[in-house]
Amino acid sequence: MSEYGALPPKPAQGPRTAAQPSSAPMKRIGILGGGQLARMLALAGHSLGLEFAFLDPAPDACAAAVARQVRGPYDDAAKLEELASWADIITYEFENVPAQAVRFLEEGRRLVYPPAEALAVSRDRLSEKTLFTELGIPTPAFAAIESLSDLEAAVKTIGLPAVLKTRTLGYDGKGQSVLRRTEDCAAAWAHIQGRSAILEAFVPFTREVSIIAVRSSTGEEAFYPLTENIHREGILRFSRPHAADPRQAEAESYARKILDQLDYVGVLALELFDTPEALVANETAPRVHNSGHWTIEGAYTSQFENHLRAILGLPLGRTDLRGSAAMVNCIGSLPKREEILAIPGAHYHDYGKEARPGRKVGHYTLSAASDDELDELIRRFVPSSI
Amino acid sequence: MSEYGALPPKPAQGPRTAAQPSSAPMKRIGILGGGQLARMLALAGHSLGLEFAFLDPAPDACAAAVARQVRGPYDDAAKLEELASWADIITYEFENVPAQAVRFLEEGRRLVYPPAEALAVSRDRLSEKTLFTELGIPTPAFAAIESLSDLEAAVKTIGLPAVLKTRTLGYDGKGQSVLRRTEDCAAAWAHIQGRSAILEAFVPFTREVSIIAVRSSTGEEAFYPLTENIHREGILRFSRPHAADPRQAEAESYARKILDQLDYVGVLALELFDTPEALVANETAPRVHNSGHWTIEGAYTSQFENHLRAILGLPLGRTDLRGSAAMVNCIGSLPKREEILAIPGAHYHDYGKEARPGRKVGHYTLSAASDDELDELIRRFVPSSI
Repeated sequence: MSEYGALPPKPAQGPRTAAQPSSAPMKRIGILGGGQLARMLALAGHSLGLEFAFLDPAPDACAAAVARQVRGPYDDAAKLEELASWADIITYEFENVPAQAVRFLEEGRRLVYPPAEALAVSRDRLSEKTLFTELGIPTPAFAAIESLSDLEAAVKTIGLPAVLKTRTLGYDGKGQSVLRRTEDCAAAWAHIQGRSAILEAFVPFTREVSIIAVRSSTGEEAFYPLTENIHREGILRFSRPHAADPRQAEAESYARKILDQLDYVGVLALELFDTPEALVANETAPRVHNSGHWTIEGAYTSQFENHLRAILGLPLGRTDLRGSAAMVNCIGSLPKREEILAIPGAHYHDYGKEARPGRKVGHYTLSAASDDELDELIRRFVPSSI
Repeated sequence: MSEYGALPPKPAQGPRTAAQPSSAPMKRIGILGGGQLARMLALAGHSLGLEFAFLDPAPDACAAAVARQVRGPYDDAAKLEELASWADIITYEFENVPAQAVRFLEEGRRLVYPPAEALAVSRDRLSEKTLFTELGIPTPAFAAIESLSDLEAAVKTIGLPAVLKTRTLGYDGKGQSVLRRTEDCAAAWAHIQGRSAILEAFVPFTREVSIIAVRSSTGEEAFYPLTENIHREGILRFSRPHAADPRQAEAESYARKILDQLDYVGVLALELFDTPEALVANETAPRVHNSGHWTIEGAYTSQFENHLRAILGLPLGRTDLRGSAAMVNCIGSLPKREEILAIPGAHYHDYGKEARPGRKVGHYTLSAASDDELDELIRRFVPSSI
């Protein structure tokens, strides 16, 4: 049962498939996951005349305020079928969709974007780093780790410090362990509980940056301005795009290689380390991304709208900056809304989630006419302890 | 019964009243009316962490995609009670709320904004023009008409051409009749079917303009840039704000007088004729207004968000232009979405309504970095037959 009774399937044309696209304009978007990314996709898409439903097991999924919920686990065939037979097209708000669900959707030959291969690559750090290497994109030295002896051997080749990460299911710094001395191997291996892993060389970087890229099912591509990110405790805290970053062309060339190689459709985020020599690719996210939230007010077209345009094969919107913008994440709890709204040019995004330590519960964007004006806003209103 | 079962009333604190405001932040917004204005209010307000429900008798009210519907007539006490006991605060998307509903809400001492007096003034063209005159705001010569002999006498005083309008329930050019010759009196009187009316002198104007003003329950006020409007067949077709219109200060001074006089709370639109001598006030709308739709992408803060901030007593957002913008209404039917989305900097707003002649079914906004860039977009993409 969905939140308000089962979703009605499309009566006339039956499920839309990749093999037999219908000529009627697609307007029903099914989303796997009902968190803030699904919520912001729906908020962006209603204006385009789209309708939204999502599958999520949580009784308090925050996308439910603006989209219909099919409540159930992600690997429940009946729930997937309910969503898929209602929707014209399926997309994801997170990459850790169970393989079972992806297979089910693929077998039904539903239109599913981004493509399953991109999900598979992003889900597995080893595949991802291997892809970077194959495409000639600089990435930290890495080695596959299946045992403590693998780890001890890799530490000798790669050197220290290095980072041990589980191949799958890691995000926001979870499932990671930094090794500084050879003696750290056993503890690090224990920390990840013997799961398949990857050891990566530690990259001394000057900045963490990301680029939000988008590719339509028509092949059209667009790239947002490179964004500088500040993380703390593995969680993004602050993002600021730069209109003419010297690394823009380099970042775009890497993102374009990935989009093209994967025959990608939708928004893809590529996170990179900026080093004195070059950009070094860290990871991709095959979805709208936290470091692109500033695009809602800061760009002509938001990443959410462009993701929807892309999966629907519609023309992509302008990705350039409108003046200057920066985003501040609200982690654990929200600030007082009247304090944020008192900041000139501030846009507040309360995700409607309960406060909980480490949880992303909202963000606010500062927009200004110029970099100088934005600098002043940041100086006055953004806590230095972000 | 509401769309998804009755709304749950607030359990703990009971209905919030003007006399006994609660200290918990208000977040449940009840709206009378569920058309595109309610829809865009909800789309703007979810980001502020607000929740929305609306009362509307229509089975296909387009706000239902983003807010809960209480389905019923506007004068149904039980439905009004259901909405009011759920909501922290009540607002309107249209001014022609039945007097009965207003009385009911007033008697319950619910927080209702804009205030009932502003609604009453806007609903009645005679009260409205009388208010303009009392406040020293230029307005066309006018006379109250209750009979054909009133009309014949007024035509002698006011002169011709003149416009006969019903005092209430007129919008988008409905309930109006232009008199060019004395012999037109009988036909005009017959056209409005003997309803209470007002005869207004015809004003030869150079432009139709409007100003969107907003006043918070704290008394804070803000004004958007003056907007130039083009109507056809009494329906708004095209709006374009100007960053430094020579009439800005004049329009603001008139709007401020009205806001202050009515102890107004929320967004108010004031429509004016620009004449070589002065601005001449035509009418007010005590709500978010079609000529302010460009503010969604064209201003730092949209009229919808500022209306919500105002009724909640939150700090108002910046009202200045971000670059340049213009809005095109879609009347009767929608253009192909891919054609609109192919325009650089275009933002498409499909209201999710069925096509019907004369119906407002959507709009699109063109945004650009400069007036020159916008001029070029309008030249290339906006049909001259708007």
